[in-house]
Amino acid sequence: MYNKSLLSKNILAATVLSCGLSTQAAPAFQIERLEPANWWAGMQHPQLQLMLYGKDIAKLTPVLNYPGVNLTGVERSNNPNYLFVNLELAANVKPGDIALHFSLNGETVLSHSYPLLPRRDGSAERKGFSPSDVIYLLVPDRFANGTPANDNVHGMHEQANRNNEHGRHGGDLTGMQQALGYIADMGYTTIWPTPLTENNQNAYSYHGYAATDLYNIDARFGTNSQYRDFVAEANNKGIKVIQDIILNHIGNEHWWLKDLPDNNWLNNQEFLTGKPFIGTNHNRSTVQDPYASKIDSAQFTDGWFVDSMPDLNQRHPLLATYLIQNSIWWVEYANLSGIREDTYSYADKAFLSEWARRIMLEYPQFNIVGEEWSPNPLIVSYWQRGKQNKDGYVSHTPAMLDFPLYDALLKALNDDESWNGGWVGLYEMLSNDHIYAEPFNLVTFEGNHDTARIFSLLNEDMNLYRMAISYLLTMRGIPQMFYGTEIAMTSPKVRDDGKVRADFPGGWAGDKVNAFSGKGLNATQKSAQQLVKTLLNWRKSATAIHSGKLMHYAPDNGTYTYFRYNDSQTVMVVMNKQNQPVTLELARFNEALPQAKAATEVISGKRIKLDKQLTVPARGTLVLDIR
Amino acid sequence: MYNKSLLSKNILAATVLSCGLSTQAAPAFQIERLEPANWWAGMQHPQLQLMLYGKDIAKLTPVLNYPGVNLTGVERSNNPNYLFVNLELAANVKPGDIALHFSLNGETVLSHSYPLLPRRDGSAERKGFSPSDVIYLLVPDRFANGTPANDNVHGMHEQANRNNEHGRHGGDLTGMQQALGYIADMGYTTIWPTPLTENNQNAYSYHGYAATDLYNIDARFGTNSQYRDFVAEANNKGIKVIQDIILNHIGNEHWWLKDLPDNNWLNNQEFLTGKPFIGTNHNRSTVQDPYASKIDSAQFTDGWFVDSMPDLNQRHPLLATYLIQNSIWWVEYANLSGIREDTYSYADKAFLSEWARRIMLEYPQFNIVGEEWSPNPLIVSYWQRGKQNKDGYVSHTPAMLDFPLYDALLKALNDDESWNGGWVGLYEMLSNDHIYAEPFNLVTFEGNHDTARIFSLLNEDMNLYRMAISYLLTMRGIPQMFYGTEIAMTSPKVRDDGKVRADFPGGWAGDKVNAFSGKGLNATQKSAQQLVKTLLNWRKSATAIHSGKLMHYAPDNGTYTYFRYNDSQTVMVVMNKQNQPVTLELARFNEALPQAKAATEVISGKRIKLDKQLTVPARGTLVLDIR
Repeated sequence: MYNKSLLSKNILAATVLSCGLSTQAAPAFQIERLEPANWWAGMQHPQLQLMLYGKDIAKLTPVLNYPGVNLTGVERSNNPNYLFVNLELAANVKPGDIALHFSLNGETVLSHSYPLLPRRDGSAERKGFSPSDVIYLLVPDRFANGTPANDNVHGMHEQANRNNEHGRHGGDLTGMQQALGYIADMGYTTIWPTPLTENNQNAYSYHGYAATDLYNIDARFGTNSQYRDFVAEANNKGIKVIQDIILNHIGNEHWWLKDLPDNNWLNNQEFLTGKPFIGTNHNRSTVQDPYASKIDSAQFTDGWFVDSMPDLNQRHPLLATYLIQNSIWWVEYANLSGIREDTYSYADKAFLSEWARRIMLEYPQFNIVGEEWSPNPLIVSYWQRGKQNKDGYVSHTPAMLDFPLYDALLKALNDDESWNGGWVGLYEMLSNDHIYAEPFNLVTFEGNHDTARIFSLLNEDMNLYRMAISYLLTMRGIPQMFYGTEIAMTSPKVRDDGKVRADFPGGWAGDKVNAFSGKGLNATQKSAQQLVKTLLNWRKSATAIHSGKLMHYAPDNGTYTYFRYNDSQTVMVVMNKQNQPVTLELARFNEALPQAKAATEVISGKRIKLDKQLTVPARGTLVLDIR
Repeated sequence: MYNKSLLSKNILAATVLSCGLSTQAAPAFQIERLEPANWWAGMQHPQLQLMLYGKDIAKLTPVLNYPGVNLTGVERSNNPNYLFVNLELAANVKPGDIALHFSLNGETVLSHSYPLLPRRDGSAERKGFSPSDVIYLLVPDRFANGTPANDNVHGMHEQANRNNEHGRHGGDLTGMQQALGYIADMGYTTIWPTPLTENNQNAYSYHGYAATDLYNIDARFGTNSQYRDFVAEANNKGIKVIQDIILNHIGNEHWWLKDLPDNNWLNNQEFLTGKPFIGTNHNRSTVQDPYASKIDSAQFTDGWFVDSMPDLNQRHPLLATYLIQNSIWWVEYANLSGIREDTYSYADKAFLSEWARRIMLEYPQFNIVGEEWSPNPLIVSYWQRGKQNKDGYVSHTPAMLDFPLYDALLKALNDDESWNGGWVGLYEMLSNDHIYAEPFNLVTFEGNHDTARIFSLLNEDMNLYRMAISYLLTMRGIPQMFYGTEIAMTSPKVRDDGKVRADFPGGWAGDKVNAFSGKGLNATQKSAQQLVKTLLNWRKSATAIHSGKLMHYAPDNGTYTYFRYNDSQTVMVVMNKQNQPVTLELARFNEALPQAKAATEVISGKRIKLDKQLTVPARGTLVLDIR
């Protein structure tokens, strides 16, 4: 059904070879790039725009004759080396190769066979990651090195150097694929790798957030087809895959930079020619601020994230279409179950709305999570689908990362208890959920590649770690855990990317400690891994967590108690920050407690009687499965 | 036009004397209390409910015959000593004395002449305090002792003792009235005294938040008519008066407690009989929390504030009407320009809505400010008129105290500058204004009777103090200052009511320091007083502050700049937290800066040229009036 070879990176070269020209006098037209390199029959949105790159290609006029495909127009930018071809595909168009011909002065000077592929069965009906899932976030360069042979690739700038914590370490798709058994066994059901697309930057290329080619996997990670195989094998193991996409910026080694498609595709393009650099002001509040000045709003979205990452002007219609098609291409090509969109609010907001609308149009049950790094639910909620915003802004992005709750959880665990501190802060943050359109579809997390390691932030206190993990895995939302959290990896408490993104032990041949096999893990690490594995595997069938309601009780006596419940299951979670056991009168919880008189404590596996009172151990966590 | 004598505290006693009974066999019926003691002709709301208290008075049947007044019914509680008489007043009813007769077995056993007074001209059209005003909050017991003779009053529990910082010090209405010249001269245009109603409690009676009679001024402050005279003289000096009203609770020495009007007027009444006391949990988030348990919500509103303050059940219709009429009575009687409602969210929320609706029905241009002590704008905004709440709750209260901005201001001034700290916190808090229905009608403040003194919280740094005062008096909202702030009074940094509410120097005969005259003030105090006076008096005619727009610029280089502007005036405020001067490029502010090339710096009075650059002194504040 599905022809892999059509999609390999080399098809373009092969078809370009066929573009022989008849006379020497005619210019040697050539398609150096054509993006997207293929499309699919049967998409909801009928329009498709091809971007062709080649010397003076804008001089050419395309022609085609394919049933169900109309050439509706051609657009040219102010760079003669780009040509944009607008196609309209009928709903019932058949897959096949579209013969594209390009003429100059009535003569065909170039031809290209454009693949229109069949879609996978059920592609449009795919289900995105959801509250039934737990996401495993990993940094591919730092996770597992399955193919040392691709650590260095001829013609690519940065070489692997495992001694440089800001350099490439050699992790790759093969390593990730080999780890799928471990990940599935642990109980994670979704993987979010930080970006895998080509980052042929001179330095710091390992993190992936400075793309130099939006349509190709970085060769040091593998190939496009390897990526697709990885997703397929993950899916076979019941694991969804999320792709990390960056709409705000690219890397300054992106191929466009050598010959910009349009002199209006970048914001503040003059920085390229040595004008004083102005970065974004990071003032994300300007988006909604009734009193913001235009100059600040513009600097927020149009200032560059850093000087090596040119800022994209998504207001340009050709670029907007390019980015939208690119995202959809990856979903369809790699069979993704979700997108994580980086530096969300830094992009143009009208574009963001249309981008998500177009994706959700193709995949109505898909999920997209945006990163808005703010502890303020008023700011984060603005971007989620369904929110009634005062300024009328409509979003189509179903999920956002729940930075406010992450912040509140850490504060609650670290701060002393008081009338307005400790648990109360977490309790109150959750009460703000009325501001979200879909609070249960927020992605909650205990840390990520940009934060310090949670075990360190909790002062390596296993009791607090247990509370954090238990909270994350039983609270509303879609939990995301960072690779290595399951073995209580540590880092400095202040941001230190190199140390936070340390190599996962066992991912490299010769590693003395191997978290995959358990070899060399210390008692703390083993205990952490067991805790995570137990909770994750229990959670897989815990419908009260997936889709149940939530009721929480005001923190009292150093404890915080909440319930997740549906008709068939009630989960009661109690955390006690006190240094002595606390006995709770169960009558207080009558509104949420079912008639059942016993429960299984999930972490220990012990049966617990639920009578008049419940004693919570000193600094203890109880996850009671009552059904 | 207006007959003061009708309203004196003694009218009831006078009329009760006329209730002679004809035979000894008949029970000696007597009206011990009748509330409200009078009403007015021409109110919008036609219904009036009289509460009569007297032994077995519920046995009686009232009769009346007065043109335009219908006796529509009688209600009785479960205490036979109370009778509630429902009257309906025609829109055109004439002022006069309504002869009320009460019969038993067809025989009139009691009569009472009920005064229906004429309203002041323009009473309904009165304008409440507004952003043109600056409010002076004072604690009457601690402000000025004009009449030492009333420091102790026979029959009242607590005696004055100026050496006890939690006791009464003797301040009174006469003292406040004598200070009106000072207050007006300083430039304040509104006074909010903490509650003046009777607090005949055994201890801590000075603060006024534990009323023992909702219809009478505490005799140690003065009389009802003295209060009315105080307001009248304030009004003559261009000063509005706000009354502090508490709907949530009363004092446990309230006269009701001796013979409760109904056994359902108090929440958790069983505490009175020695049952274990449960205070409010202060979890104000339960009001909107989608996950709150009913038991927590109920404890928030029905738990007692403290054990000496019984919690009122405003869900009881007779009590609700009593409280609503009481508030309106004070507005009309004393000619108020506003109400400040204490512990706002702790009362029943449906009642709060109706209470404010009724007041605003009588005085559509009035203002009411509620106290919701939360740093969270999601919580505070819920209670303001016009907010579209997710749960459909409708408020009629026009203003709320802006605790979130107060918190953010202090943090901004005290914290070091960083990408997310210092000025950015204040800038971001203001950006949340989109959540408020009427952000310009919020009451901003620099401190109150429950907070530490701002000068102390700013480490007695006059530069920071200048920023705080300048910000407050130029930012959107209705500023409120605490008595003594103008002379930089100090306190411990942690809450210490007795010290925060210290006596205002010069308010007592023999005070060595006199802030009214300036005698004995040190240089810092004089400088503070001059700063406040200058800004307040300038503000009186600064229309850009009263009703202008607001634009602020993202904090940069340790400075924060914003503009207030209308067609005729632009005010530019710049604050520099750095220890060195900062030079701003004015081009950045083109969107807000008018063409004018010069300004008056309000604090110093100096003319400043506005050319390409503006230099702000180290730790300096510039308030530039450009017009």
